[in-house]
Amino acid sequence: MFKFQGADILSVNQFDRASIEYLFTVADTMRPYAHREKRTRVLDGAILGNLFFEPSTRTRVSFGTAFNLLGGHVRETVGASSSALAKGESLYDTARVLSSYSDVIAMRHPDSGSVAEFAEGSRVPVINGGDGANEHPTQALLDLYTISKEQAHNGKMIDGMHIAMVGDLKYGRTVHSLSKLLCLYQNIRFTFVSPNELAMPDYIIDAIDNAGHKYEITDQLEGNLSADIVYQTRIQQERFPSEDEANKYRGKFRLNQSIYTQHCKSNTVIMHPLPRDSRADANELDNDMNHNPNLAIFRQADNGVLVRMALFATTLGVEQVVSHHDCGIVWYSQKAESGL
Amino acid sequence: MFKFQGADILSVNQFDRASIEYLFTVADTMRPYAHREKRTRVLDGAILGNLFFEPSTRTRVSFGTAFNLLGGHVRETVGASSSALAKGESLYDTARVLSSYSDVIAMRHPDSGSVAEFAEGSRVPVINGGDGANEHPTQALLDLYTISKEQAHNGKMIDGMHIAMVGDLKYGRTVHSLSKLLCLYQNIRFTFVSPNELAMPDYIIDAIDNAGHKYEITDQLEGNLSADIVYQTRIQQERFPSEDEANKYRGKFRLNQSIYTQHCKSNTVIMHPLPRDSRADANELDNDMNHNPNLAIFRQADNGVLVRMALFATTLGVEQVVSHHDCGIVWYSQKAESGL
Amino acid sequence: MFKFQGADILSVNQFDRASIEYLFTVADTMRPYAHREKRTRVLDGAILGNLFFEPSTRTRVSFGTAFNLLGGHVRETVGASSSALAKGESLYDTARVLSSYSDVIAMRHPDSGSVAEFAEGSRVPVINGGDGANEHPTQALLDLYTISKEQAHNGKMIDGMHIAMVGDLKYGRTVHSLSKLLCLYQNIRFTFVSPNELAMPDYIIDAIDNAGHKYEITDQLEGNLSADIVYQTRIQQERFPSEDEANKYRGKFRLNQSIYTQHCKSNTVIMHPLPRDSRADANELDNDMNHNPNLAIFRQADNGVLVRMALFATTLGVEQVVSHHDCGIVWYSQKAESGL
Repeated sequence: MFKFQGADILSVNQFDRASIEYLFTVADTMRPYAHREKRTRVLDGAILGNLFFEPSTRTRVSFGTAFNLLGGHVRETVGASSSALAKGESLYDTARVLSSYSDVIAMRHPDSGSVAEFAEGSRVPVINGGDGANEHPTQALLDLYTISKEQAHNGKMIDGMHIAMVGDLKYGRTVHSLSKLLCLYQNIRFTFVSPNELAMPDYIIDAIDNAGHKYEITDQLEGNLSADIVYQTRIQQERFPSEDEANKYRGKFRLNQSIYTQHCKSNTVIMHPLPRDSRADANELDNDMNHNPNLAIFRQADNGVLVRMALFATTLGVEQVVSHHDCGIVWYSQKAESGL
Repeated sequence: MFKFQGADILSVNQFDRASIEYLFTVADTMRPYAHREKRTRVLDGAILGNLFFEPSTRTRVSFGTAFNLLGGHVRETVGASSSALAKGESLYDTARVLSSYSDVIAMRHPDSGSVAEFAEGSRVPVINGGDGANEHPTQALLDLYTISKEQAHNGKMIDGMHIAMVGDLKYGRTVHSLSKLLCLYQNIRFTFVSPNELAMPDYIIDAIDNAGHKYEITDQLEGNLSADIVYQTRIQQERFPSEDEANKYRGKFRLNQSIYTQHCKSNTVIMHPLPRDSRADANELDNDMNHNPNLAIFRQADNGVLVRMALFATTLGVEQVVSHHDCGIVWYSQKAESGL
Repeated sequence: MFKFQGADILSVNQFDRASIEYLFTVADTMRPYAHREKRTRVLDGAILGNLFFEPSTRTRVSFGTAFNLLGGHVRETVGASSSALAKGESLYDTARVLSSYSDVIAMRHPDSGSVAEFAEGSRVPVINGGDGANEHPTQALLDLYTISKEQAHNGKMIDGMHIAMVGDLKYGRTVHSLSKLLCLYQNIRFTFVSPNELAMPDYIIDAIDNAGHKYEITDQLEGNLSADIVYQTRIQQERFPSEDEANKYRGKFRLNQSIYTQHCKSNTVIMHPLPRDSRADANELDNDMNHNPNLAIFRQADNGVLVRMALFATTLGVEQVVSHHDCGIVWYSQKAESGL
């Protein structure tokens, strides 16, 4: 099994099924802390270097909150223009210096491979928060964790499930990484719904094939939604030759409560990596679904905190002793799970 | 009385006199913590989401410091360009996601009504730190709190006092909100000093009338400064048809030590929402007043921390137990109250 | 001796030798905390106002980390555009207000003298993190602290040492400040290597002369590198009349392992204020030296944390009681000293 303590978390390719299941077991133990039923100080005094050389509010705050929930401090850097990188400093130098300022680093950067390059110079574990078009492993892990919870809620497992991925399957790194992780499981059925121009790349299809899973490829949404999980993404208008061309597809890939009622199973779970575009001409996932209990999009965000807490706890080697540092809560903010 | 625990603080219209007096009593108990005579850990482990989608150094840091003084962590977001809002995400979605990252939220946003819209989606209390031209309730509360302290210092109450508001009374949201709060008290005398073009709006005048208070409207500064409180604001040059026109008024509404000595009472208190413009051609409140003990502008800033501490303590329901979590201070930084 | 408690740290001119030696003794006691062999909560609950009106990732994070390592909270402000300064507020007003939000302030600002001006209005100690071309005293102190450690490692002292300063000696404030500090010691030999256009200013040369030290001035790198310390800086191309002119010098002032082997002593220590420019046409200090144990550039960054911890501890008067507040560490991130 993957040894988490002291490791960098750079790619979904690092994990085998046993490692993921271990991580998810740790994430489960984080739930009462995130929900404010319990509180721990296990990382009291530890420092997270939260380095977002490319800005991202939700991922950045999710990492920071996860670290605070374990009791630690967060030192944050946002944006690249002001940084020494702009003066020609190498990522190696930046890493050597900045890693002396923290106990673990979460990092986003616009360039593919940059986080791995940074990790070479770092003296503390580095967790990839997204390196351009390359990888965003914590998003894939929180998606898979959400799927496992949603399936369990419906009395099922990941093994044997049917997932429909919808939208821009060519450029969306979240659907690529999630597909790779699902290859570690058994008997998955994939339905890929996209315009031909935005189809899932061959190397992902090959990986699915090699892992012995079944798949269908289609450009029709209706008739292909009776899956356990529908993972919706944004059709990116700017990728098409013309706006007219894009609109032809965007009209066909919208999901709303009426389509759900007609075409999904009664307990089909709807996921989306967020943000969803709520402007009238672009809403791939209509607000009229907000009270559908099978809409899991906000539970994905909640689960992101749990998975990131689990990654901090395991890379810093404290996952077995979190509850030894429990302490009281006097303020009121017990939160129900979103949408459940 | 207004139930603070779990509530959003969106508008001065939410409060009645009893609620305000309760909040101010809580603010009083915060003074020794802000002055470093005592220290509490009552919110140790709690997380403030300090969301400044429109930047503001002093208000942002004041909220963050207030939360730190109660023992809590702060996760901060500054600026909107980088946020998912820019990708078309609704405030509802943003709120659903970001509220899972904190126990209470302080938020500033450039659009009127945006904070209330955000609060609809939030699963934790939201405190309005300013939503465009609409509301900035914590500024109004700290202004009123300062007035109550200054009046008490001079052996008086808010009831029965005389306040002169000076400058841009048309666009200044602070004078509007403060006037609304003063309507909850008895026998206030208002003197509104402004160019005719920048007079106090009718709906505020009507509210003052309906509450049975007295008021005068004038465009002359001299002769109208013998009030208990003079609340000075900035004449905003950009609102006038020409610079010449603006300069005509700016010359008349400047306040300095010589004018104070001639036209104010010996203990007239001078307030200003800050920042004041110190450039030579714009100084509505001259630096030569900095050592006048009745200049309350820095005490307003100090009091802002106390009022925000009180809002955090009451919305999280811990105001009765703050002192149960007292702990020691070993570092030296006991601060005298500014200018007293 | 300089009284640290409650003092502003604005300039290297404030210090005498005894004060510096006292500060370095305190910095020594900080090492086990920075290396995570021990942990202290001595500043638990204290608040640092980390005000970077001019951005700087490494200096800003170094200050913030130093404060976190002593147990304190950090409230941060980055950039000036959003601040009240942009609305014409005086530094005095800004200081009066912001100093009520923290127990100590670290500040960087683009204008010479601005930090001292701010300190006039501040009610808490202010530490200069760089005010334009004027001063950056914590950099000079960490450089000198590094020199004392490197000399000790080689069985020597600062007194009697030989230092070569290389590159842009005219505009580099780090070499000016370091030279001033070295004047407090005995029998230093300086070798100044630079293009004539970028020679060390006369007032520094005079100070060295008056202090009774020896110096040589040259524009040749080779033959002048057999010092105890070589302090390399960046040749700033933009300062030359033409790129051709600049390239003539840049070619001559590059340092790499082969030049080191030929021209340095076997234990000559290489320093650089960082960031170094790693682009092929500009590398004043080649990456092929990264594994040379005498390359001290990353130890400088490490030592910056220790010196800043010492400054916080002394200005807040807790340096004698740090270890009274020791507490446990449960997470794993014990760090070796960089490059040793």
